[in-house]
Amino acid sequence: MSDTEKLFLWNCWYVAAWDHELLDGKKLARTILEKPVVVFQGESGKYIALDDRCCHRGAPLSMGRVEQDCIRCMYHGMKFDSDGICVQIPGQDRIPKTMRVRSYPIEERDHLIWIWMGDPALADPDLIIDYEPLGDPGWRGLPAYLHYDANWLLIVDNLSDFAHLAFVHTNTLGGSEEYAYTTKPVEIERLENGFRVERWHMNADSPPFHKKVIADKDAKIDRRNIGHMQVPGIFFLESLFAPAGTGAEKGNLDGVRQYRNCQYMTPETRRSTHFFWNYLHNFDLENPNVAISLKDSLFEGFYEDKEIIEAQQVLLDNDPGFRLRALEADVALAHFRNVLKTKIKQETADIDRQRPAAVG
Amino acid sequence: MSDTEKLFLWNCWYVAAWDHELLDGKKLARTILEKPVVVFQGESGKYIALDDRCCHRGAPLSMGRVEQDCIRCMYHGMKFDSDGICVQIPGQDRIPKTMRVRSYPIEERDHLIWIWMGDPALADPDLIIDYEPLGDPGWRGLPAYLHYDANWLLIVDNLSDFAHLAFVHTNTLGGSEEYAYTTKPVEIERLENGFRVERWHMNADSPPFHKKVIADKDAKIDRRNIGHMQVPGIFFLESLFAPAGTGAEKGNLDGVRQYRNCQYMTPETRRSTHFFWNYLHNFDLENPNVAISLKDSLFEGFYEDKEIIEAQQVLLDNDPGFRLRALEADVALAHFRNVLKTKIKQETADIDRQRPAAVG
Amino acid sequence: MSDTEKLFLWNCWYVAAWDHELLDGKKLARTILEKPVVVFQGESGKYIALDDRCCHRGAPLSMGRVEQDCIRCMYHGMKFDSDGICVQIPGQDRIPKTMRVRSYPIEERDHLIWIWMGDPALADPDLIIDYEPLGDPGWRGLPAYLHYDANWLLIVDNLSDFAHLAFVHTNTLGGSEEYAYTTKPVEIERLENGFRVERWHMNADSPPFHKKVIADKDAKIDRRNIGHMQVPGIFFLESLFAPAGTGAEKGNLDGVRQYRNCQYMTPETRRSTHFFWNYLHNFDLENPNVAISLKDSLFEGFYEDKEIIEAQQVLLDNDPGFRLRALEADVALAHFRNVLKTKIKQETADIDRQRPAAVG
Repeated sequence: MSDTEKLFLWNCWYVAAWDHELLDGKKLARTILEKPVVVFQGESGKYIALDDRCCHRGAPLSMGRVEQDCIRCMYHGMKFDSDGICVQIPGQDRIPKTMRVRSYPIEERDHLIWIWMGDPALADPDLIIDYEPLGDPGWRGLPAYLHYDANWLLIVDNLSDFAHLAFVHTNTLGGSEEYAYTTKPVEIERLENGFRVERWHMNADSPPFHKKVIADKDAKIDRRNIGHMQVPGIFFLESLFAPAGTGAEKGNLDGVRQYRNCQYMTPETRRSTHFFWNYLHNFDLENPNVAISLKDSLFEGFYEDKEIIEAQQVLLDNDPGFRLRALEADVALAHFRNVLKTKIKQETADIDRQRPAAVG
Repeated sequence: MSDTEKLFLWNCWYVAAWDHELLDGKKLARTILEKPVVVFQGESGKYIALDDRCCHRGAPLSMGRVEQDCIRCMYHGMKFDSDGICVQIPGQDRIPKTMRVRSYPIEERDHLIWIWMGDPALADPDLIIDYEPLGDPGWRGLPAYLHYDANWLLIVDNLSDFAHLAFVHTNTLGGSEEYAYTTKPVEIERLENGFRVERWHMNADSPPFHKKVIADKDAKIDRRNIGHMQVPGIFFLESLFAPAGTGAEKGNLDGVRQYRNCQYMTPETRRSTHFFWNYLHNFDLENPNVAISLKDSLFEGFYEDKEIIEAQQVLLDNDPGFRLRALEADVALAHFRNVLKTKIKQETADIDRQRPAAVG
Repeated sequence: MSDTEKLFLWNCWYVAAWDHELLDGKKLARTILEKPVVVFQGESGKYIALDDRCCHRGAPLSMGRVEQDCIRCMYHGMKFDSDGICVQIPGQDRIPKTMRVRSYPIEERDHLIWIWMGDPALADPDLIIDYEPLGDPGWRGLPAYLHYDANWLLIVDNLSDFAHLAFVHTNTLGGSEEYAYTTKPVEIERLENGFRVERWHMNADSPPFHKKVIADKDAKIDRRNIGHMQVPGIFFLESLFAPAGTGAEKGNLDGVRQYRNCQYMTPETRRSTHFFWNYLHNFDLENPNVAISLKDSLFEGFYEDKEIIEAQQVLLDNDPGFRLRALEADVALAHFRNVLKTKIKQETADIDRQRPAAVG
């Protein structure tokens, strides 16, 4: 059992890319769970993910050339099919069976490319967690990506307590510091594979990102956020802005503005993360500038997170003995870390069971 | 007893900053003895130094906001007073006593901000080593700062043998290579917490930095340097330039030009140093350009030191087995390193005595 | 026996520099086998190589000053002669015998500066492997240098299988992918200190680098490469281009164009390499642009190698457990690695024999 195996949950689907990152035959070199992977679309349209390392001398296949649904290493010309099996060695007739690279199960859903880094026999596509708004023409948004120099759980933590909106994002996504003082989660549901949190802010000003895409910028609003975090690092956020006092909390949806937001945190390494998201809206759908404005606002907000989270990572790295102290608001965060820890422990035990005992 | 504890002397005052670095409410993030510290001036004018790391999730307080004499972490809004005690948690009524960050004793003296990184109970302000010329209107100079990528003792070494003036600083602070051949320390006083060295150079040319601020640039001079080094890394230098042959060495101060120079080496980490200095003069006080010229000349000279000392650090890092060979002129250097080693050893023993024995 | 000792072969000559790198008294700071070395030409014309680290405080001698055939450390002024013996200490009369730095045997041959990093007693200049074309006015070329962030054996590997010309250098040095499919080594000679490989490509197009310096760019050619690799990392390449079908393979040299190429790989560290080469031609000698064109073409080709080899190094570094899988074409590579391993093992045993046994 290597260190890396214990750091991550292996047998689950991770987002590897947005499909637009693979347009025009692009070979995407992306490290996932500390493994170098090349992701590309074969000429048949099939998505393919292989070890980004030729089994011969370790050259990156992402510097290679796609041929039909194969990729040719451009060092000595070995060609690998979509299962990673070597099908041609220039100047050599016999191809030993050991000549292959690992292939990874890969699936596309609503423009997201999902990868399974663990045991391929367990890679059930039904386990992929779909996000309906991504495939629903009633919602519109733009896919985005950000790289973090920080462990993915620091980003999960960040999303687990929306009080940070008040301080990190006062002038972008938050709107006011009042949010931290006058709102609390209605409830925190501890789920088997994550948590669900609902939070209301009544009779408030609209936050800046929302003001930019609505007409009546000064009207008071009742704001609701419902966050849903799932293993390994998948976050869905429903946001609702209703005219203040119209009873949205009792179910009246007249005049509301809604957003649907999905965020995916895929560990690149133990201290860096691929962060994918789409912030969707269901109003003014004929106006493309709404999605552009929201994408820009979210980038602005996420850069605020990135700055503080990466600084946090540096401080944590510099002093491994430092013990964090929990607040009451860390209930969701703590539950999620427990869930994940338990799953990793279980997975580790399963793997160990399947291995022959070491000679003792 | 951690490694870090043995690397540095803890129970003594270090220079943390010049006061001008904290103007206009600036929160200075400065690592000292490998600890992240935030230094700022509260709205009452009080100087405050705290761990630059929120006890909650490790975010840097230097990214926070000063409120009266408190600082608020701008991640989740916790507010800490000048003792590091948490006085507000947005959205949480009860504040556990463990919610605090470390505060460091801090004192201002003549524009220098001193910090005590060790046991606060021992932080006696009377132990601060004042430098009178800094507070004396008869002396004028400009405060300066330089960062070194080198252990602070390599800079102490550098200042322990002024023969280096001849070779490193021939065209700036030194003036000629003759200085190394024809001058020797009159005496090296071994002090309980450092050393004192006096060195004369008779009938010499003025060094370039001095020529720039005097009228008779070609007159021969008798030059005296008195260096005084003290633990942990505080260096005072008295320099005197007298018309050659007028008997300055016997006490005649007619026509002399004098300088007073203080230098403070504060370890940032084991391989980097904060270097503060002020080079003061007591003539032509009505002319501000003298101080500017001297500051520029010293920067020029210290950059020469920095280049060779940082190269030295790299070579030492690359070969931990390399054994240095001492010259006769290393007496002062060797004495200082011994003094410091003894003090660190004593301090380590004291700390160990105060701790419960490990269960054996 | 330190790690470093086992990583490299010590008792052999390495190329340290081209002589033009030492023109005008330049003191070249160059790390070789992880040792810092300063190489310079004394005022007598003698080449000198010393530890680039003063024995006093570890300052680099390459920041020093050449005086006759000595070098003076410009920190405290110590002067070392060409044997590394300290001959002057400013301000100190007695010079202890321990005051010296290591000197390395050094020899110039046809503009190459060779250094011996191992036991000086074994440094026989007759062991230097000359390359006659470098000193032969019938051949013309330009000396060149490239730095690799990769272990030198990855470059040796690269040169051991010319199939890579087809894929890495299709548009520069190779000319076509056909080269990999239709040519094989005529034979691979396993030599006591390396290998020799001959490879023919009949009735082919000229590769781009060759086309640039000949008149009849479209004529078919018969191409022969003879590579000769020797310990520690010395590669000679004879290339011949004959009009297709004129029987060059049987010895008819009418109308051929020939090149002679030497390449020297000197380890800087375990993961970086100094790479020296000269690509010589024996036609159109009165036209200096031929050598310039060839130098440019080779730089172009070697940058293609550098890109893939440095990427390979990163992937190998990131996963020490990764096991490479050999192709049939790796016979030469495998033989060379074996030869070198055996020599290093033998050398290590020799050194251990000469040392007193550790007290047990």
